[in-house]
Amino acid sequence: MKITILTIAPEEFSGFGNAHIIKRAIELGALKLCIEDMREYAAGSFRHVDDSPYGGGGGMILKCEPVLKCLESVKSRYSGPCRTVALTPRGEVFSQKKAWILAEEEHLILLCGHYEGMDERIFRYVDEEISIGDYILTGGELAAQVVANAAARLLPGVLRSGRAEAESFHRNLLEYPQYTKPADFRGDRVPKVLLSGNHEEIRKWREEQAKRLTRERRPELFEG
Amino acid sequence: MKITILTIAPEEFSGFGNAHIIKRAIELGALKLCIEDMREYAAGSFRHVDDSPYGGGGGMILKCEPVLKCLESVKSRYSGPCRTVALTPRGEVFSQKKAWILAEEEHLILLCGHYEGMDERIFRYVDEEISIGDYILTGGELAAQVVANAAARLLPGVLRSGRAEAESFHRNLLEYPQYTKPADFRGDRVPKVLLSGNHEEIRKWREEQAKRLTRERRPELFEG
Repeated sequence: MKITILTIAPEEFSGFGNAHIIKRAIELGALKLCIEDMREYAAGSFRHVDDSPYGGGGGMILKCEPVLKCLESVKSRYSGPCRTVALTPRGEVFSQKKAWILAEEEHLILLCGHYEGMDERIFRYVDEEISIGDYILTGGELAAQVVANAAARLLPGVLRSGRAEAESFHRNLLEYPQYTKPADFRGDRVPKVLLSGNHEEIRKWREEQAKRLTRERRPELFEG
Repeated sequence: MKITILTIAPEEFSGFGNAHIIKRAIELGALKLCIEDMREYAAGSFRHVDDSPYGGGGGMILKCEPVLKCLESVKSRYSGPCRTVALTPRGEVFSQKKAWILAEEEHLILLCGHYEGMDERIFRYVDEEISIGDYILTGGELAAQVVANAAARLLPGVLRSGRAEAESFHRNLLEYPQYTKPADFRGDRVPKVLLSGNHEEIRKWREEQAKRLTRERRPELFEG
C-alpha cells in the first residue's frame, strides 16, 4: 500500500515513521509513505497557500490552486488507482471498519486541511471526507496520521497474525481486561481464572468481561 | 497549562511541537509540554516495560510498575493539582466539549498505552479514560497528541479571539462552507452572497449552510 500525505506542514510528520509498527510496515515493504509539501505548488515568491475568506470572518482559508496542483501532480506520477480522502471535521466519522476498507487501497492520498478551513471547491476533487472525531485540531496533520496509522497496522504481515481480530470494535465489543506479571501488585491480584490454565474458562471470562465493559460504557455499540 | 505525556515511545512526539499553533502556545508561555519516557522507570538492565498476558493470547501488556513509578515521580515533582487521563479505546469518547474542560486543567497528565494493552490495575490510579474514536492505533501516542493539540489551541491568547466559537461542534453544528480567492476557479464560482458586502445576508446564508450540512451529514448532532 502507498500512502501519500498532502500537507503544508511536513515538519509535523517527523515522529510518524518512528512508531514501531509503522517502521516495521515500511521495512517489510508493506507500506510506502510519501509526504508532499503543498507549499511547493504555490505561486509567487512568498508561496502563499492561504488567503482570507470571502464574506469576512476570522482565519485564513487554504486556496484551491496549490492544493489541486499538488494533488494532480501526485496522481500523474502514479499509474494505478488512487483514493483521495480529505481530513475535515465535517467528514464521515472514522471507524475501525473504515480502517479495514482503506487498508485495501492501493494508493491512499490523504489531504490535510489547515488554518481555519479549505476552500469549498477543493472538496469536488476528492473521493471522500473523513473526520477522526467531533473535536477541532490545529490542522488535518494529526488526523491524517491517525488514519494512516490505523490502516497501516492492518496490512498483511504487519501485526502478529490473528491479533487484530481480538481487539476493541472488531465485533462491536470493547476489549476485555488484560493482566501481566506480577500476580500481586501492591495487594491488587490478578483474577484467579486467568491463573487457572483452563482455556475454556478463560475464554468465557474474557467474553463476559468484554460484554460487561461494552454494556457499561458504550451501550450503543453493544449488539448482545 | 502544563501537559505531561507518559510514553514508552518519546520518539513519536518529535513532530508534535512543530505545529504552528502549538509552537505559539509554548512561546507565549500558555503551554508547558513535557514528555516522560516510562522506560526510565523500568527495572533491570533491559528495562522491560511489557510482558505477556496472564491467561494467554497474543501481544504484550504494559506492566504496572514502570507506569506507576513514572506517574508517581511526575506527580511528586509538581506541587499543584494534576489530572491523569489514560488514552484507551475503551475510554469516554473525546469531544470538543471535553477539550474545553481539559483546557481548564492546571496540569494534565496523559498516559499512553502501547502494544496490545495495559495491565488493568493501572486504571485504578488514573482519574479518567479517554478514547479519541472507535478505531485502533499502534499505541496511545497519536491519541495523546490529538487530546493535547485540541486542548492547547483553546488556551487564552493562542487563537485569534472569538474564532473558536465559530467552529464545528461549538453549537452542535458543522462549520459553513468557506471560500477564498479567486472568485472563479476553473469555472467554479464563489456564491454571490459572499461577494455582496451585505453582512446580515452573509450571516444568514452561513447559518443556513451550517444547518443544511449538519442535517445532511450528522443529523444526530442537529438540534434545530
